[in-house]
Parts: sequence; C-alpha cells; structure tokens
Amino acid sequence: MIRVEEAEAIIQAQVRDFGTERLPFEQALGRVLARDLCTDRDLPPFNRVAMDGIAISYNTYAGGTRTFQVEGTQAAGETPIEITSAAACVEIMTGAALPATTDTVIRYEDLELQEGQATIMIDTVQQGQNIHPQGKDRKKGDVVASADQVVTAALVGMAAAVGATELEVKKLPRTVVISTGNELVAVEETPLPYQIRRSNSYMVKAALQKYGLQPDLLHIPDDLDQTKEHLRNCLQAYDVIILSGGISMGKFDYVPQVLEELAVEKLFHKVQQRPGKPFWFGAHPNGVVVFALPGNPASTFMCLHRYFISWLESSLCIKYGPGLFATLSTDLSFQPALQYFLQVKLDISKNGQLSAIPLQGNGSGDFANLVEADAFLELPSDKSDFKAGEVYKVWPFK
Amino acid sequence: MIRVEEAEAIIQAQVRDFGTERLPFEQALGRVLARDLCTDRDLPPFNRVAMDGIAISYNTYAGGTRTFQVEGTQAAGETPIEITSAAACVEIMTGAALPATTDTVIRYEDLELQEGQATIMIDTVQQGQNIHPQGKDRKKGDVVASADQVVTAALVGMAAAVGATELEVKKLPRTVVISTGNELVAVEETPLPYQIRRSNSYMVKAALQKYGLQPDLLHIPDDLDQTKEHLRNCLQAYDVIILSGGISMGKFDYVPQVLEELAVEKLFHKVQQRPGKPFWFGAHPNGVVVFALPGNPASTFMCLHRYFISWLESSLCIKYGPGLFATLSTDLSFQPALQYFLQVKLDISKNGQLSAIPLQGNGSGDFANLVEADAFLELPSDKSDFKAGEVYKVWPFK
Repeated sequence: MIRVEEAEAIIQAQVRDFGTERLPFEQALGRVLARDLCTDRDLPPFNRVAMDGIAISYNTYAGGTRTFQVEGTQAAGETPIEITSAAACVEIMTGAALPATTDTVIRYEDLELQEGQATIMIDTVQQGQNIHPQGKDRKKGDVVASADQVVTAALVGMAAAVGATELEVKKLPRTVVISTGNELVAVEETPLPYQIRRSNSYMVKAALQKYGLQPDLLHIPDDLDQTKEHLRNCLQAYDVIILSGGISMGKFDYVPQVLEELAVEKLFHKVQQRPGKPFWFGAHPNGVVVFALPGNPASTFMCLHRYFISWLESSLCIKYGPGLFATLSTDLSFQPALQYFLQVKLDISKNGQLSAIPLQGNGSGDFANLVEADAFLELPSDKSDFKAGEVYKVWPFK
Repeated sequence: MIRVEEAEAIIQAQVRDFGTERLPFEQALGRVLARDLCTDRDLPPFNRVAMDGIAISYNTYAGGTRTFQVEGTQAAGETPIEITSAAACVEIMTGAALPATTDTVIRYEDLELQEGQATIMIDTVQQGQNIHPQGKDRKKGDVVASADQVVTAALVGMAAAVGATELEVKKLPRTVVISTGNELVAVEETPLPYQIRRSNSYMVKAALQKYGLQPDLLHIPDDLDQTKEHLRNCLQAYDVIILSGGISMGKFDYVPQVLEELAVEKLFHKVQQRPGKPFWFGAHPNGVVVFALPGNPASTFMCLHRYFISWLESSLCIKYGPGLFATLSTDLSFQPALQYFLQVKLDISKNGQLSAIPLQGNGSGDFANLVEADAFLELPSDKSDFKAGEVYKVWPFK
C-alpha cells in the first residue's frame, strides 16, 4: 500500500494534453487559454478624456490665460474637434479622444461656463491632467492574458475589449463517470429496504462544472460480462474514466480484474489514507487514464478533489501553486497509520488567518457531513496527535 | 458625497425577495435552497456492511467459536440472507444490508475460507464491527441542508441520495445590464480611432454566472429619448437594472435625469471611493432597484462586487459573514479622502495567513490589471498611510 505522496506523484506522471479548440469568448468562462491574448490596439487606444469639462492647450494657461472660447462640444465617440486658436477650448466628455491641439482637461467643477466662454477658477492645473494617455496601460500587441491562464470574468471583459470574439482554449478530456453496484437505483425510484439511490455520479458531475467539464454518466451492474463490455467501449470513447465502487475485496468487485484484462496497466491499488483506501489507478497504452474511486460518497469526493482535480488542473497547465494551508482549530487524535482527510469548515479571522474547524461527523463515511463541510484537511500519516494551531494542507471543495 | 459604509447600508435596506421556483436537482448548482432538504429514510437506511467478508452473530464468537458454516453469499443490493443456526455465517459484501440474525462483520483479510467454512484468524473482534449502523448519520426526516444554503456539489449528491429530483430554490432577479455611451461599438466591429468596444456588460454577465444569474444585455446610445424609452421598458420588465456609464457630469449623461423623470428615487449619487466615485443608486416605487455604475471597467467591476453582489447575496439570504480579511504585503500611501479599492493578488502562506499583494498598475482605471488581480483590498478613507502587515477587508473576484 503506497503513501498519498507516492500516489500523487504517479498520477501527476500521467498528465495528458487534449489539444485546443476555439470558443466564442462568452462561453469560455472557467476554461484555460491555449495561447496568449494580446491587445489589437494600445490601451487606451487614444488619449482618453477622464473627466467631463474642457480641453485646452496648457501653454496658453501657463501664459496666464484663464478664459477660453468654446469652439465646440465633443461627446465620447465623436471625431476630435481641433481648436483653431490657442485661446480656444473644446467642451469635452469623459471617454472622448483628446483633440491633438489640446493636452490638458479641466473638469466642470473647476470652471464657470457662460456665453460660449469657459473660465478656469483654480490655479493648480497640471499639464496633461485628467487624461488617460494612449498606451499607458498596454501597448498594441502586448500580452494581456497569457496561455494557461483560467478565463475569469475580467478576462472575458478584456477579450471583448480587444475584439477577441473567439478564444483558443485547452480542450477538456472526454470524461465518463461510471457508478457500479447492484444496490444502486435511479434517483427517481423508491429504493427497496436494502437498496440506495445513485448519488456519486451527480456529485462528481456537479464538482466538475466549474471547469466546464460535462462528463457522461453511466451505470454498470455488478456483472462480469457487462462490466467488460462497457469498459471496453469506454476505453475507446473517452480520454478519462472515473469509476466509483467495485474495487474492494468483494466477490462482485470486477473492476480491477476487468481493467487489467482490457490492458489497463494498474499503477497502484490502495493508498494509505482514510477515507479512500481502496483507490485504484491505471492507464491504458492508448493513453486513457482510469481513476477507480471507492464507492463510499465521502471517499469518492475526497479522491476526486485530492487526485482527479489535481490531475485535471495539471493536464490543463493550470498553474499548480503550493496549495492552501490552514491552522487546525482544536486538538485531535487519529491513531491509524493513514493520511486522514478530515472534513472541516474554513474560517478566515479578522486577522486574515485561515483556520480549519473539524466537523463533528460520524467518521469518514459520513456523507451528510459533506454538505456542511468546506474542505478536507490533510493530516499526515506519520503523526497521530494533532494540536490546535498547527498548520496543515487543505483541499477546499466549495 | 456619502461614505462607502453609508452607501452599503442604503443598498442593504433595499434587498428584495424574488420568490421561489422548483428546479431539477441537477440544474440547481450555485442556486440557494428555499426550504430545508430532509432525508426520506434513515442514513444509512439499513445496517450497512462496511467491509467485504462474513457476517456472524457475536455471541457465538464470544462463546469461543472460530469456524462458521457459510450459509450463502449476499451481494450489495440483495435481500438479506438470514442464518439458520448460531454457528453459521453469511459471506457478505460492502454495501449490503446486514441480516437481522447477525450483528458483526469480519473482513476477508482476517479470515480463512475453505470448503464452505470461514475461520476467523484474529482474537480482537468487537461486537458490531465493520457495520455502519442504520440512522447513524441522520434519522428519517432530519434536515440535511437548510433553507438559504447554496447548492454545492455535495448538496447535489445528497439531493440524489434522498430522492429530491426537484429542489425548491430562490428565484433570481430578472436582470438587465445596460451599457451606455456613443463611443462603444460591438465586439465584432473594428472601432474607429476614437471608439472602443463594449466590454463591461460581458464582464458583468460572466461575474454573475456562478449565481446562475443570466442577465439580458442592452446597449443604449447617448440620446435622451432613446434612454427614456428603454429605461421605461426596463422598469416594467426587470427586477433590477445595472447600468454602466452615463452618470457623470457630461452633457450626454442622461441616466440620472431620466431615471428621476421615470420616478426612480435617487437614494444616493457619488460615493467617497476610488474607483467608482460617480456611482448612482435608486429604487422605483414598483420595487425595481437601479445600480447605475460608472462606465470605467475597473469602476464597474469594483461596484459590482462591493455593492451589487452583496445586495444579491442578501436578497437571496446567502449568509452574510464578516467577510474576508488579508494583510497588506507592502507599505502604501493614498492621500485623497476616498476609500481606496486597491487591485491585489491574494496569497495564502504556508502558515495559513492570507496576504494581499498590490499590483503595479496604472491607477484605478487600469482595466488590463484586473485580469491579473484576484481581489480588491478596501483601504479606509480616514487613513492615508498603510503599512505592511496591517489587515484590511478584501473583496475577491476570482
């Protein structure tokens, strides 16, 4: 049985590249850019007036002039109105392109406007004031978002601004989530006393939504032939297979056997962790990766976040930071020599300190607890006593 | 001009209730429950076998018996097989319902199975071991997720488990995002030198996606009659109107005037903040709320997160915590008597400390910076020197 860190390393050695595709920019939220996004013009694209008022030539003001003849009014979006004498000005609106014959903007609050003349009421005018100069933020061709960046709302806005009606993003793996187990019935059915409803697949699908990943769902009964037929097809049709259940010691746990018969190489089976110990992981020579997760909902959910999502993010080249850390809020003991993934609520104090508050659940199998929890706190297997204030890695899932 | 805290209080006094609706549970991610979600059965619904192995009656074991006659094999999802003598056992799989005649499970790893007999090889068997007892996690009728909780992936899974094929969730406000300004052209157009592309509406729409809110988008040119006609229609068709631009001192900034002519009561105009000073907020007697945000992208984005999203969350009764706090990473000065919303990157140290690293941008108007930033750090208006290590409120937007 291998350690969590070994399992992680084996999985990270199986990252894949799924190619790229072009998407309308409005549909790209949560996806990962496949190439740099560059500006098609300077940002701002012109000397942009930043206040409503008048535009003047500063030299005239510096020479002592305070009253300027208004030569016209220029709204945002209009061709610039050039002044025809140094003592003239243009009444001008925020967002307009500054006329080339002017270089300074005085806001209405500092003016008196009367009979076609504007008088400046202050003596603190600075040359170039109230102008957002062309190219100040970015020059034409500059990178505004680099390849491997996740598309955020701000990036969607920037794509619109630079006219990138389509974005080239990383393709997502074709994914199937397979539930196994004859005790499982459909959500709309009323289970018999010894049956339960399928829930893991829906939970997994929902957790992947923020990546834009929409897995197909499939249920396979505990039958050797059917398991084989379905998995053979899935190994052709998908890039990655997520299974839940069917990997323990049970007589009808056909998954590991069938996967190996179908030439999926077992890279590990069982990890020193709770929950999720029976986790099986392998890869097919054709490149398909198989995450066979334990069927207990808390185990499925933990392995999904700790392993599958990390693998997905690495495959998409989402920058893999040092992760998140939080202080444990209370003392805690856990004796088994297993890495313990504790369900916690997260809290950020008024001092900006992230802490993890263990939830009073009924052990690792308590599915209902997951609904309240925010994250798993990863408590290392080589310790059994954990003290309040100690810092551990945390895997958020909300 | 009012303070940020006053603006917030005025807005929070205008929260609304948009009613409820029923949705298929698979479509409810990110929405807010309108009523408690309860279990339809105990969780687990039966004494659930937690390991593959045999089920026995503990009393027989306690009496010294170590070898048990296997009376049958029970898979998960099958009717329990009752033993017909105290010295019998059932070979049983994880997920199966424990037969009423047994009370203890011994896993395969601790057994020898031979010729229809199972011999227990350990002396540490505990009564009731390897069983997840019926109702241990929740009793039938217990609340597993309460009204006002956001639907997470775990909650989607729980809804499936309890057979809640539909969830009653809070309705979202019918929302329109309106851009104004004659300088704006469509994303697919090539702007003239003094024009720019519309981008704010797309950015706002993308930022609201995680709430499941899909606003309509509308562009109104800087024309008094058209502004009036469009806003009159929107006041009938929507619950909330988000405008960007058209609220400053400009001659063609018709928005405040038109809104007041249409009986929208101005609740404030201008807030002591940078960016976003010209922010206008009002409400119509028919209940429609109007957020008229400044058109500068950084201003729009800041006001959206600081005010609109807070209002939306309050309206949906999403629990309103103390917010998020982070330590400033470097000294900083900001002289104006305005609340300064600094664009920052967030970092969580290996000690679990959240810190905010100011981005070297070109001031509050730098839109390109937003793509790199994670959050706004809110620096209070009554200070002008901010020191590394001081803690301030932070508004994340990634």
